[in-house]
Amino acid sequence: MIIVMKPGAKQDSILKIKELIEANGLDAHISDGKEVTIIGVVGDKTKLQNQNLESFDEVDKIVAVTESYKLSNKKFHPEPTVVKVGNVEIGGDNFVTFSGPCAVESEEQLITTAHAIKKAGAHILRGGAFKPRTSPYSFQGLEEEGLKFMKKAKEETGLPVVCEVTSLTAIEAAVKCVDMLQIGARNMQNFYLLKEVGKTGLPVLLKRGLSATIDEWLNAAEYILAEGNPNVVLCERGIRTFETATRNTLDISAVPVIKEKSHLPIIVDPSHASGVRAYVNPLSRSAIAAGADGLMIETHPDPSSALSDGPQSLTFEQFEQLTEDLKPFIHLMGKKI
Amino acid sequence: MIIVMKPGAKQDSILKIKELIEANGLDAHISDGKEVTIIGVVGDKTKLQNQNLESFDEVDKIVAVTESYKLSNKKFHPEPTVVKVGNVEIGGDNFVTFSGPCAVESEEQLITTAHAIKKAGAHILRGGAFKPRTSPYSFQGLEEEGLKFMKKAKEETGLPVVCEVTSLTAIEAAVKCVDMLQIGARNMQNFYLLKEVGKTGLPVLLKRGLSATIDEWLNAAEYILAEGNPNVVLCERGIRTFETATRNTLDISAVPVIKEKSHLPIIVDPSHASGVRAYVNPLSRSAIAAGADGLMIETHPDPSSALSDGPQSLTFEQFEQLTEDLKPFIHLMGKKI
Amino acid sequence: MIIVMKPGAKQDSILKIKELIEANGLDAHISDGKEVTIIGVVGDKTKLQNQNLESFDEVDKIVAVTESYKLSNKKFHPEPTVVKVGNVEIGGDNFVTFSGPCAVESEEQLITTAHAIKKAGAHILRGGAFKPRTSPYSFQGLEEEGLKFMKKAKEETGLPVVCEVTSLTAIEAAVKCVDMLQIGARNMQNFYLLKEVGKTGLPVLLKRGLSATIDEWLNAAEYILAEGNPNVVLCERGIRTFETATRNTLDISAVPVIKEKSHLPIIVDPSHASGVRAYVNPLSRSAIAAGADGLMIETHPDPSSALSDGPQSLTFEQFEQLTEDLKPFIHLMGKKI
Amino acid sequence: MIIVMKPGAKQDSILKIKELIEANGLDAHISDGKEVTIIGVVGDKTKLQNQNLESFDEVDKIVAVTESYKLSNKKFHPEPTVVKVGNVEIGGDNFVTFSGPCAVESEEQLITTAHAIKKAGAHILRGGAFKPRTSPYSFQGLEEEGLKFMKKAKEETGLPVVCEVTSLTAIEAAVKCVDMLQIGARNMQNFYLLKEVGKTGLPVLLKRGLSATIDEWLNAAEYILAEGNPNVVLCERGIRTFETATRNTLDISAVPVIKEKSHLPIIVDPSHASGVRAYVNPLSRSAIAAGADGLMIETHPDPSSALSDGPQSLTFEQFEQLTEDLKPFIHLMGKKI
Repeated sequence: MIIVMKPGAKQDSILKIKELIEANGLDAHISDGKEVTIIGVVGDKTKLQNQNLESFDEVDKIVAVTESYKLSNKKFHPEPTVVKVGNVEIGGDNFVTFSGPCAVESEEQLITTAHAIKKAGAHILRGGAFKPRTSPYSFQGLEEEGLKFMKKAKEETGLPVVCEVTSLTAIEAAVKCVDMLQIGARNMQNFYLLKEVGKTGLPVLLKRGLSATIDEWLNAAEYILAEGNPNVVLCERGIRTFETATRNTLDISAVPVIKEKSHLPIIVDPSHASGVRAYVNPLSRSAIAAGADGLMIETHPDPSSALSDGPQSLTFEQFEQLTEDLKPFIHLMGKKI
Repeated sequence: MIIVMKPGAKQDSILKIKELIEANGLDAHISDGKEVTIIGVVGDKTKLQNQNLESFDEVDKIVAVTESYKLSNKKFHPEPTVVKVGNVEIGGDNFVTFSGPCAVESEEQLITTAHAIKKAGAHILRGGAFKPRTSPYSFQGLEEEGLKFMKKAKEETGLPVVCEVTSLTAIEAAVKCVDMLQIGARNMQNFYLLKEVGKTGLPVLLKRGLSATIDEWLNAAEYILAEGNPNVVLCERGIRTFETATRNTLDISAVPVIKEKSHLPIIVDPSHASGVRAYVNPLSRSAIAAGADGLMIETHPDPSSALSDGPQSLTFEQFEQLTEDLKPFIHLMGKKI
Repeated sequence: MIIVMKPGAKQDSILKIKELIEANGLDAHISDGKEVTIIGVVGDKTKLQNQNLESFDEVDKIVAVTESYKLSNKKFHPEPTVVKVGNVEIGGDNFVTFSGPCAVESEEQLITTAHAIKKAGAHILRGGAFKPRTSPYSFQGLEEEGLKFMKKAKEETGLPVVCEVTSLTAIEAAVKCVDMLQIGARNMQNFYLLKEVGKTGLPVLLKRGLSATIDEWLNAAEYILAEGNPNVVLCERGIRTFETATRNTLDISAVPVIKEKSHLPIIVDPSHASGVRAYVNPLSRSAIAAGADGLMIETHPDPSSALSDGPQSLTFEQFEQLTEDLKPFIHLMGKKI
Repeated sequence: MIIVMKPGAKQDSILKIKELIEANGLDAHISDGKEVTIIGVVGDKTKLQNQNLESFDEVDKIVAVTESYKLSNKKFHPEPTVVKVGNVEIGGDNFVTFSGPCAVESEEQLITTAHAIKKAGAHILRGGAFKPRTSPYSFQGLEEEGLKFMKKAKEETGLPVVCEVTSLTAIEAAVKCVDMLQIGARNMQNFYLLKEVGKTGLPVLLKRGLSATIDEWLNAAEYILAEGNPNVVLCERGIRTFETATRNTLDISAVPVIKEKSHLPIIVDPSHASGVRAYVNPLSRSAIAAGADGLMIETHPDPSSALSDGPQSLTFEQFEQLTEDLKPFIHLMGKKI
């Protein structure tokens, strides 16, 4: 941690901060510059977490030099984490495809989809039973009934299943039916929920928030890991920018950045990122080439009648074509499908 | 609702959509343009909510012409709403100041603050007992103990109190102690939580999400109103942009925009918006001049020892000076303090 | 300047950087932290400007502790600058209103407007003769003919005039007709143009770029000042964000931030910031209350027939009402009109 | 074009607009909705360009249904454009790599680089002689001397050369030395400059502005095309967002979006987009997989001594490795190198 003093800060103010640092058992290195003085803090910064150094009058700014996340940090855990979801492994040299409808609408819709995506080579079935929707008047999901259909789809096809959870009640219902819990973008900083999914011990798919920095995202993962649950998979799904040609802006750089900063697997959701069916194929190839560990692709038996996010869903034929098109790219990256 | 077809859309596709619209009991007006055909949909759009018109193959885009929020919409409720918190009225020609520490740290800190802000003219005491923090290793709040201090501060000073809630458990504890519940920026689209605070019937202070559009914000308010709870106060607290000179970017235009689109009161939080103590005074004046119904200002007996957000907190002397400085602006806007 | 090394950086790499710094005549203070080593650089950083310290292999990041702008920096020039445009003074305790049409369309339109705004109390006439338009098929301005109308309007009313310039040719034509040159948002980092307007010695109105940070904006001002031209007035006109309820997002915090970092005057353009006539009044009040030195307001004899930006232009009656409404706020801020 | 009236708009206002539209030779289709009336405008919209329909009092908004760019629009020019730069073809099934230093620093640096990148398989040499820099005190480029080195490098290696131009003077000097002119991100909406490069007839590399929408970018291209110069190549180089882990956010979706909306070739610059050497390789693969027609990669004989943008430059060895690594991805996309 570096403390940058304001220009002309009095010797007195500098000493007061030095004493505070040392009183907390750390060392303070003072550099008197031509214009400003900087204080380098050496030692265990957690001892200072209750001190508001920025509030001292002649402090200009505090510059952090180490990340606040530890368990999700590659620095302290250099080997890539492999997360097991049912019998499917995510991370390492595996490439995993999640697929299914945005929202579970009926038993028939889900079972049909599960069979179709399995045939096309998908590994995990996704489906939303609790849907966060902008308007209270939009379809909110089948809730517990939807979870039962998820369980049935799993029994019929053998595919592990993942479902978003939005409350403790939803978690309690979901743990009985699904293999992995999803935290959606809007709940990425719902820290209460993060702790609760952490406690279940189930694998968690953590979507990036709409305006979350990568640093905040890894801190959100830290909330789950800190509960003793190491099974976190990150999912880049587009961030909010000024551009309106796509629903969100897929931050493809997040893939190599995460690979450099963390050991956690990362997958990409090109369906939500773009919101446009025609862009799912090129963005899927991009994600693979950037080094992603998997993809999450929306599919629906009849996208034009979907109750949620139809415009970005693929038909089964389109999905089958996609998985076929992607194979050579996955192989080129040295990954196993 | 307007459906814009792709250039060269086949007559057949157009007719199929027209039939679907009419089959749902609405009217379709077709305009054949030189380049594209557009279909105006007339009637009750909620009947179409389960139809994914955007997924039809030759549809280019759907343009909404009416807002999805109804109860928070000024169009259907032209009179400004006045929300009562304890004996304090927010909205109309009242100007209300919320103040207090970011986090409740001790009984003494809170009671001292309550007395000081009351003396300076504040109307409502704020204080965080459940703190959403980016890192799991930062101070998370005193939780239920903090709520008890809030209650005590209220009993000692007569000031109504408001506290952020982050879970159903927190709501259940808070309703026994506070007069108003706050939904923080990170939970603005935690729809489950919105419904639960709606059900309590208590007044709700709804902060704008970090990257929430005004439309999404009013839809979030709609979730609360739709539970039969009309007591919602909006709080602009800065949005996330590329600028780093301030912690967030205060969207001052949100004040007149909300005044035009909604009947709900809106207050401004310059402390969180800027993150810098020196900007709280000019931004408070700005908010008043833009037409805000109130302010939320962070205060702390000793900002340099605050466990959360010290750099933006005012001392009691600074706060007293601020309320004094703001009075003529409030009067100029024709508001009662 | 602080150099943060990567964790585990070799002693060798650290020494190499230390030697380079010292070889350039500066001092290097090394702090060995528990996790990382930081090097504080003390001395005249311009001596290092040709060294790419960030490219050294074990360097993690470089943190600047002093601003790169000097002439526009309040630190080295604490007194507020007052810029004279004709006989009008901008800055200090003066409050100045610019007004006029977005685009000069005809002699009659401009002269009528000039008389009307003068009567309503405006101090400077604005008008665009060279219009940067997104599409090449939109009206591009009357160019030199427009400048002649500006000159005539000035002669008839005595109001100083300001016009945007977009090329050296435009500058050469404009200096003969106008009192102040404007650099538009899209040209804020057209450094060639900045140098050229700097050389003219005429006062310059420098609009903030659509996605320019305040730091970049003051560096753009520095380009003009570095040509020996101290007469720069800044103009906040909204930045680009995700919000679409207003055309841009007025960054009201820019006013106090600029007042803290620079001695240059700053005015606000609520017309371009919001793009909506109804928001011009509340945003003007906000700007005054935030401490702005002036306003730029678009007016037009008949906004519905304006060739550019009609929706945000005020009629003369509306403008007269506005200037009347704003007077008490300007007085309250201790400014002279 | 669709005109959406405000709720409760008077019949009179609607008729006035209808008459105006018809008076300009277009048709107006009126749809009376339950809440609002919409007017579909059918015919040649350019006839209405001098009418400010948005300024009419009861108009809520105008929705454009056709793009304002025509010459760059795929709709009217479905075949992909192939741009010839010297003997190199860009677009169609060609894949082209641009490489070279951010700034030309010396004859030796440039010639060495030219030989090295040619050996590694690059097709076009880039180099900056006129450098737009945030601070006036940073290295501004060798200007005309730099152009001479570019010409010499071309003569020695046979590689076509491209250089950014920032003024008419720069264009006049550059056309004598280089094969392609580059418009940098900061000048993307310098419409004067766009027209001037258009007039030269030379191929133009048009970088996307830092906060330019894709629609604005294609309109910028339209300025060049409208001068009779069809040789425009687009270059995605990252946009400005809130994320700070990378210098900019590479908008990879821009590649498929441009491929859908325009016939112009598009290349990607991962060096400027990320600002980090380690991300150049994964982002290059991503760009290829997304369908880009080429890449622009910064190289330098000794990045740690580069006068501009060292941290993102590759050494010759790294560049050679990169071109080798990318080959199978380029082949997989069916492109010729």
